[in-house]
Amino acid sequence: MTTLMMGNDVAKAMKESLVQEVEALKAKGITPCLAVIRVGERPDDLAYERGAKKRMELVGIECRAIELPEDISQKELEEEIQKANDDTTIHGILMFSPLPETLNEEKVRSMIHPFKDVDGMNPVNAAKVFSGDPSGFAPCTPKAVLTMLDYYGIELEGKRVVVIGRSKVVGRPLAMLLLARNATVTICHTRTKELEKTCRQAEILVAAAGKARMVTKDMIGESAVVVDVGINVDADGNLCGDVDFEEAKQKASYISPVPKGVGSVTTSVLAEHVVRGAKYFHLCGCDSQQVLRIL
Amino acid sequence: MTTLMMGNDVAKAMKESLVQEVEALKAKGITPCLAVIRVGERPDDLAYERGAKKRMELVGIECRAIELPEDISQKELEEEIQKANDDTTIHGILMFSPLPETLNEEKVRSMIHPFKDVDGMNPVNAAKVFSGDPSGFAPCTPKAVLTMLDYYGIELEGKRVVVIGRSKVVGRPLAMLLLARNATVTICHTRTKELEKTCRQAEILVAAAGKARMVTKDMIGESAVVVDVGINVDADGNLCGDVDFEEAKQKASYISPVPKGVGSVTTSVLAEHVVRGAKYFHLCGCDSQQVLRIL
Repeated sequence: MTTLMMGNDVAKAMKESLVQEVEALKAKGITPCLAVIRVGERPDDLAYERGAKKRMELVGIECRAIELPEDISQKELEEEIQKANDDTTIHGILMFSPLPETLNEEKVRSMIHPFKDVDGMNPVNAAKVFSGDPSGFAPCTPKAVLTMLDYYGIELEGKRVVVIGRSKVVGRPLAMLLLARNATVTICHTRTKELEKTCRQAEILVAAAGKARMVTKDMIGESAVVVDVGINVDADGNLCGDVDFEEAKQKASYISPVPKGVGSVTTSVLAEHVVRGAKYFHLCGCDSQQVLRIL
Repeated sequence: MTTLMMGNDVAKAMKESLVQEVEALKAKGITPCLAVIRVGERPDDLAYERGAKKRMELVGIECRAIELPEDISQKELEEEIQKANDDTTIHGILMFSPLPETLNEEKVRSMIHPFKDVDGMNPVNAAKVFSGDPSGFAPCTPKAVLTMLDYYGIELEGKRVVVIGRSKVVGRPLAMLLLARNATVTICHTRTKELEKTCRQAEILVAAAGKARMVTKDMIGESAVVVDVGINVDADGNLCGDVDFEEAKQKASYISPVPKGVGSVTTSVLAEHVVRGAKYFHLCGCDSQQVLRIL
């Protein structure tokens, strides 16, 4: 029997506790608020923005779109970031990336206030995730993987977990989050030799390679848990993951589909981060030590 | 035939090129200089300081000791860091840690100028190491492991490497440096189940667990390369590594001893970082993009 890990079920469960947390904050006069900073009008960004906005509304979080022209200057963008940093009614800043090449993205990322940096773009948060400090914001997608595994009661402690992919936004931070949960983590990538064999030994296999259906059943151990983070478009124009779902579900004990899998959890994690941001700001005075106490 | 990987041989080879680089910088009027900031007088710190000073002298790098009392205030320590940051004749800052508990170490670490932070303490450098950006300074010990493997011509690309230990200073950054070199990296730790089996599959095994002689021959695959980063004192008061050397050398193709192994390379890496710091400062104007161009 294979259990499908459905993103909407996870999101629904998260919604309940988020609504309660938002209400508790509102009772204290704090309305959690996300600022979405978008430069230009890339279709992917617009789609994610719509999803994020809808999710924030569902749980009572305010969402402010800061729409900027594609030809914005570095100075003007920095001023916008500074304004959002200084605005005490904003608790989370989501900035879409990559920025147009004319802009210095590294500098802009490092400007986002670490305690408002709900998508983990600032090096301070990257360093915290790297070192296992839970007060840091991880990017939402790897966090969504953990949330999904937790929802389905999948134990991580001591488990052999293989992550395929080493991107800054998914593979690397996910490996660190898993390590912080005491998993034994192996990171595979395009240069890995004997990929099949290595993956087959995993009790939990996470595919974040960005390559359509590259995980075949030969790469999946008996009763392994398979999480698919890939979002690809196949030759027929259909959305598909990094896992060959039809093959894989014959062997996996748990498997997440694409679409309707991890992707559907991401905006709920974002909402959770905005709520955390609001708590950081109003209850901890943005002090890491205080933050660790409320976590 | 087992080859011993001797730290002094690696250090000797590094010395030659370091002397040349320092001379080239001096010809341009730049004398590379390391500032060593020590709070209190812990014997470990004093020993490392002596070694570092000697190594800097050997290659022509200036070394300035900034000795501070154990009861220094946060404000005074921050002023010392600021002074070293602002001093254009200082190119590298090594601060011993942990600091006394009365001090906010996180804040002090984040104050060290990222381009002078030759021991990789600032979150900006941690984030760079994490994301695979070569312009960042990694802590010296994990870098020394890579340097040793390179010296002995051990290929990393696609290799199965197992790192035992997940500390901020060794295990985690080492895993990221290995990943940047296209190794397939597994991170093991105290909660890992089937540690023996996992280690035995490694083509390269790095022990950084901090537990005397915990790596026995059952954990070593046939002809594996074994690097021992541990520095422990055994029950008889003798210095020993994390690897049971006598057992391990019967199976390993290459093995580093303790003492006289990786530890003897660390201060040479520190010297290399000071030289890099001098180049960053004088040739690149501390700009990440420029730095990437000269690397």
